[in-house]
Amino acid sequence: MKPIALDAMGGDQMPGAAVKGALQAAQAGIPVILIGDEPTLKAELSKQGGSLEIHHAGDVMGMDDHASDVRRRRDSSIMQAMSLVKEGAASACVSMGHSGATMAAALLVLGRIKGIERPAILANMPVTEGYVALIDAGANADCRPAHLQQFAIMGSAYAKTFYEKVEPTVGLMSIGEEEGKGNELTREAYTLLKETPSINFYGNVEGRDLFKATTDVYVTDGFTGNVVLKLAEGEARFIFGWLREKIMASGPVTKLGAKLVKPILKQLADRMDPAEIGAQPLLGVRGYAFIGHGSSDERAVKNALKNAQVLVEADLVGKITADLERLETVTA
Amino acid sequence: MKPIALDAMGGDQMPGAAVKGALQAAQAGIPVILIGDEPTLKAELSKQGGSLEIHHAGDVMGMDDHASDVRRRRDSSIMQAMSLVKEGAASACVSMGHSGATMAAALLVLGRIKGIERPAILANMPVTEGYVALIDAGANADCRPAHLQQFAIMGSAYAKTFYEKVEPTVGLMSIGEEEGKGNELTREAYTLLKETPSINFYGNVEGRDLFKATTDVYVTDGFTGNVVLKLAEGEARFIFGWLREKIMASGPVTKLGAKLVKPILKQLADRMDPAEIGAQPLLGVRGYAFIGHGSSDERAVKNALKNAQVLVEADLVGKITADLERLETVTA
Repeated sequence: MKPIALDAMGGDQMPGAAVKGALQAAQAGIPVILIGDEPTLKAELSKQGGSLEIHHAGDVMGMDDHASDVRRRRDSSIMQAMSLVKEGAASACVSMGHSGATMAAALLVLGRIKGIERPAILANMPVTEGYVALIDAGANADCRPAHLQQFAIMGSAYAKTFYEKVEPTVGLMSIGEEEGKGNELTREAYTLLKETPSINFYGNVEGRDLFKATTDVYVTDGFTGNVVLKLAEGEARFIFGWLREKIMASGPVTKLGAKLVKPILKQLADRMDPAEIGAQPLLGVRGYAFIGHGSSDERAVKNALKNAQVLVEADLVGKITADLERLETVTA
Repeated sequence: MKPIALDAMGGDQMPGAAVKGALQAAQAGIPVILIGDEPTLKAELSKQGGSLEIHHAGDVMGMDDHASDVRRRRDSSIMQAMSLVKEGAASACVSMGHSGATMAAALLVLGRIKGIERPAILANMPVTEGYVALIDAGANADCRPAHLQQFAIMGSAYAKTFYEKVEPTVGLMSIGEEEGKGNELTREAYTLLKETPSINFYGNVEGRDLFKATTDVYVTDGFTGNVVLKLAEGEARFIFGWLREKIMASGPVTKLGAKLVKPILKQLADRMDPAEIGAQPLLGVRGYAFIGHGSSDERAVKNALKNAQVLVEADLVGKITADLERLETVTA
């Protein structure tokens, strides 16, 4: 496998967390190439006593820059990373920097898979056993029914590949379970999803179904999906934070109890932590692009690289392409 | 205050939970009238050894009935309850039955406040201190920008009244904080909200802001709002359920610890429990209507009655009407 291009400059804790996470990944046998300012990265590598391949990029997209600026910022770390993927010198691109810029760079440099009008972000949501997939988690604020159909095909291919489900179930996020419930978009999408080959359509699902893992995939527009993703992450932080606060304010007996259950609480909090997945894939582009939180630490970096490798080796893009061809045969 | 009309038939645990909750409320000085099948309710009251006023209704809307059927089901408990409010014989209507039927009955019998095109459900979401308001939590799957403006005015009036906030902040649920971020609906709504008198508009908020209580009110369309509400309730149940499962499967030391922290866990789980609020108000109708979970128990019933009393006594409908008149003066 060609090395994974890691944007080592984008993100709050960079380049430190990128270098640390990449070194851990490399030790686990995952090939990585760091993209960013060479002197800075060399200094960081020597500080951490490790060695990795570096591809120099003299510029970095700031959080206040416009995503569309990537077009004229060819020397930015994200554009350089994406170009390596396009050229075949890297197998995937991972960035914890400006999400919009990563999406724009992927679209510009890699282009879309035939049959995909709108690439989408797939968010892995932790449930009791493993994960379920939420797609689109924020790439497309306004969607048409056909977009949701494409999200369903991509989400299903992803669940087959990454969750190793043979016939993953696909739910349409709506309000009310019966066909006909929902908004204009979901009612039309329902009709399309019923007739989509290569997916196992379950029907409508509701917000409460996600953490119950009623289905493996939750299809929704990028507005709802992004609100859901950020709410879910925020609520987990809220509950664990509140618990911590209450324990700190409690008496010695409760504090002792907390100490005894701490391993379980930590296990849960870790499972709900976005760093466990590290970065979410942008599906629908001709290549592999992963978008992480700006606040990502080295654990997130390492996990993102590890998960990227799994998808590359399983040829997810090839699988999505094949499923889209089945759709075209049916609708042609 | 006129008694609150409680639909004692609609809901999974009725009439038992309704009668029990109503008796508790009555003991706390809240006047209640039970609406439903008189013999059934009399039997239940005598079983529980209490006495309450009963208004007979021979029919009840089932969960599989169409909401619009209320029009020809005048004898249903929800239609009878709403009619008492309309006639002035009751001050408010509370139902744990068919949500759609309650909304339809409220619209049909009470009508809309002048200036409100679409009544909306306001959901009280628990945060560290008190609650924040999510509006619309599911009444309107497809919305126009003007509807969101009306939701903002109603949500703000509610927060002033029920949360006793002097100048509650109103956030527009979106994806991205800056003006211009979001979907077509929120971008247009942003422009309207900026110019709305009687609200303290904060700007865009994101899913993560809700549990951080960044603002007091979260304005959104009923599709997104309903997904958010059900996800939030589902995630809390998921986390506490998972925790319980892990504790059950753990060794004696962890189990002892769990016993010691149980009071804190229970306190948190109770706060996240929808029964704490009991039922959510439908705002924008000319009167007071409250919609609770079908699974409501007597605690939910009692709390719903208590909270209904607060809003009636504070004249929330009068306040919303006054704020809407200010809007009309400005836009005229």
